[in-house]
Amino acid sequence: MATESAAYRKLLKRTREIALVSAASDLLSWDLDTYMPPKALAFRAEQFAHLGGHTHKLFTSRKVGDLLSACEQNGLAADSAEAVNVREWRRLYQRATRLPARFVEKFQRTRTHAREAWKEARQRSQFKVFKPHLQKVVELNRQRAEYWGYSESPYDALLEEHEPGMRTAQVRSLFAELRPAIGEVLGKAVERSAAVPPDLIEGNYPVAAQQALNRKVAEAMGFDFAAGRIDTTTHPFCTTLGPGDCRLTTRYNERNFTQSLYGIMHEAGHGLYEQGLPAEHFGSPLCMAASLGIHESQSRLWENHVGRHPRFWEHWHPIACEHFPELKRLTPTQLAAAVNRVTPSFIRVEADQVTYDLHIILRFEVEVKLMEKQLAAGDVPAYWNENFQNMLGLKVERDADGCLQDIHWSLGELGYFPTYTLGNLNAAQFMERVLQDQPGLEGELSRGEYGNLLKWLRERVHRHGLRYHSQDLMQKATGEPTSGKHHLDYLRKKFLQ
Amino acid sequence: MATESAAYRKLLKRTREIALVSAASDLLSWDLDTYMPPKALAFRAEQFAHLGGHTHKLFTSRKVGDLLSACEQNGLAADSAEAVNVREWRRLYQRATRLPARFVEKFQRTRTHAREAWKEARQRSQFKVFKPHLQKVVELNRQRAEYWGYSESPYDALLEEHEPGMRTAQVRSLFAELRPAIGEVLGKAVERSAAVPPDLIEGNYPVAAQQALNRKVAEAMGFDFAAGRIDTTTHPFCTTLGPGDCRLTTRYNERNFTQSLYGIMHEAGHGLYEQGLPAEHFGSPLCMAASLGIHESQSRLWENHVGRHPRFWEHWHPIACEHFPELKRLTPTQLAAAVNRVTPSFIRVEADQVTYDLHIILRFEVEVKLMEKQLAAGDVPAYWNENFQNMLGLKVERDADGCLQDIHWSLGELGYFPTYTLGNLNAAQFMERVLQDQPGLEGELSRGEYGNLLKWLRERVHRHGLRYHSQDLMQKATGEPTSGKHHLDYLRKKFLQ
Repeated sequence: MATESAAYRKLLKRTREIALVSAASDLLSWDLDTYMPPKALAFRAEQFAHLGGHTHKLFTSRKVGDLLSACEQNGLAADSAEAVNVREWRRLYQRATRLPARFVEKFQRTRTHAREAWKEARQRSQFKVFKPHLQKVVELNRQRAEYWGYSESPYDALLEEHEPGMRTAQVRSLFAELRPAIGEVLGKAVERSAAVPPDLIEGNYPVAAQQALNRKVAEAMGFDFAAGRIDTTTHPFCTTLGPGDCRLTTRYNERNFTQSLYGIMHEAGHGLYEQGLPAEHFGSPLCMAASLGIHESQSRLWENHVGRHPRFWEHWHPIACEHFPELKRLTPTQLAAAVNRVTPSFIRVEADQVTYDLHIILRFEVEVKLMEKQLAAGDVPAYWNENFQNMLGLKVERDADGCLQDIHWSLGELGYFPTYTLGNLNAAQFMERVLQDQPGLEGELSRGEYGNLLKWLRERVHRHGLRYHSQDLMQKATGEPTSGKHHLDYLRKKFLQ
Repeated sequence: MATESAAYRKLLKRTREIALVSAASDLLSWDLDTYMPPKALAFRAEQFAHLGGHTHKLFTSRKVGDLLSACEQNGLAADSAEAVNVREWRRLYQRATRLPARFVEKFQRTRTHAREAWKEARQRSQFKVFKPHLQKVVELNRQRAEYWGYSESPYDALLEEHEPGMRTAQVRSLFAELRPAIGEVLGKAVERSAAVPPDLIEGNYPVAAQQALNRKVAEAMGFDFAAGRIDTTTHPFCTTLGPGDCRLTTRYNERNFTQSLYGIMHEAGHGLYEQGLPAEHFGSPLCMAASLGIHESQSRLWENHVGRHPRFWEHWHPIACEHFPELKRLTPTQLAAAVNRVTPSFIRVEADQVTYDLHIILRFEVEVKLMEKQLAAGDVPAYWNENFQNMLGLKVERDADGCLQDIHWSLGELGYFPTYTLGNLNAAQFMERVLQDQPGLEGELSRGEYGNLLKWLRERVHRHGLRYHSQDLMQKATGEPTSGKHHLDYLRKKFLQ
């Protein structure tokens, strides 16, 4: 047992070192999106490549493999922290050692340049500016899939990165159930929404006042601002730069304050998960999220099940009026109707709860086809626009409103989008269960009291880190693996009854 | 010659690697001062210690010593880039290898905690909160001096860090000339200033308007905002995070806009030096400043010789009035008189040009005594307050206005303060020379035209990097080493004639 402990301690030391350097790289990335001056880009790219290569080498060294073997051979007490960390490190080590250090550095460099190109392409709505970068990203992802290996589709290898254990075929099957069922809800929901004027909320909402309200809401949710902050970026995100340092971002529309508000509720949902992970294990799997589909369930739950709950504005309307006096012209019921208006639109992050998953299904199809060589990067706009019109009935006129709207591909991320819809499914499933467990919750939500909800999530989800993979976690927390049923029930109840 | 080139290329590769990691650490430091949430501190300290230790190991490895020896043995073309870099790397290598890696990590950790303690101590004006940290900082600096070695005073070893080639005795001698001479100017300058009301400029100056004006002035000076930015901190600074990434900070007083303005002119003066260093050598001595006394000469020149020039406001008054309409009540002459008002005050960074160096002489004395064990950390406030009153005639009531006002000691920096006065002397010396070279410059300054001045500085100072040590650079640029004469002439001419 002495050998075992020594090997495990050495692993902890090495992975802590990696976490220290990775977190510095994460700050470089946050800074690139928030405050970095443009001429700093080339050197920043060199930094990402170097630090990424350095941590990759540290983790993929033979020494780490030997230490893992030493731990495994000695046997580990079932369910102990050591057992969980060693199991997950082994899985991550296997994936990481299949990628050569040079490939990782090249991938990092490509990402950095692709991100800047995407910003420009989106601003000018010119796909051609981004096209060569997307091509490179797809090629490198195909290479990654080959390095990692897969049984059916190269897309499986990417999905595994974000949703361990899930396969493309399973996602296809879940999405095949959702697509027609959502179609059924959509038509009627749109009809009902016709009574709500699309510009009901429009007005003048100064950024400073939006920031003040958003902060109040995030605080009420339980987000700890002594261990986090909010900045402004083109594309909202949540990133953790170390224990006690979780950073959210959003963007502001001065005509409609609810865009930044729901953006912050979404990102703060992610942030609460991050702040609820056991900080003493920072750098180890026990302080990592179970999967992106679980992570996204937390943001969706707070954004939609809390923030778009029909009674959300009963508590928040008078507070919002303090920041925006012109809101007094509306009632809480009108506000709730406005933020739950269902209508097909171009931008995913502004989509309503009914159409949202259709946006994801399109992206999933594009990504799978790109990876399976059924679609070339240059054909993405045409494919996108045709299928978008088929599914949502709208003609895309500008690529900035179409295939250029999201940052993900410029970050080198394929296999990420489906986790958003998995998040919707998981969120509905958690919410159904917590409402069963806590019959008083509906009342609490209407009074802006979120403590018991957060406690339940901390207990069932946050504190476990990567102890359980997503489907095991869902089973333990809700009694069954991810299903489409609860989300569809929720949509039907909310939008048809 | 083949061996020489290979060794030099390997040195370039290694030092570039160090620069990539150091610059990440510099961003962590900038972030700590600007945006980091408080609960992130412990992990941030661990990051500094780790990254500092890592780069220290990279630079102090035997391999670097061997590569330097290989370059030296092969001989280097006089004045070549290789010759300069190898000479300076050797000097830095000798100093760095004398500090054990463990000591460097300990020093980094101490700095991080000392900085936070200082922030709190200053805010509450409680020296006891900072005292144990100052004690540690002094002890560690004594240890550094022992590791580095010195002939006369342990303070020599610290001074060498910031002002290569200078000795404590030389500084003592320059300061011994200044002290009585400044005393002579002071009495009469204060008398003349009595005609200028101390609150002449006081008014309401919104932060956003100050930021807009400061930016215009920095742009007119030639600061490139595509390669830099301005943020807000308690103590203003300038830091370079890579080629094309120079960041300034300032603080705002809503009652008096000139504090942030002159703060920015000062930091932008540093920034112009940094932006004028040859970026292609980033990470090598050719892209490093000659010394802090040279660096400071640039900030002082722009802040005082340009910004406090009697004719500065002829150009900037109408522009300032666009941002602050209430300034129309004053004339350019009144503004110039107000920002050149001489009166003893507590805060160094708010001191006028006559009293400023007295603040420095006091700090220099305290530091030398701390290092030479003639003063204990706990006795600093008493010593400070007594000598401050002797020199400036004011009684210090709050340590926040006395020995707690500056960030430097909390950063572990001793031996830094005298470089501010060296900067004043060098600035006056440069300015006297450039006015001889360019007779039209006075007129240009009154019209807000700074291109020719910047060109002269780029040519004589910036582009050389660390090719020449400060006294050689002064000799080449002005015809003599640093002297007190030009600064005293300037003060007498400006404040007595």
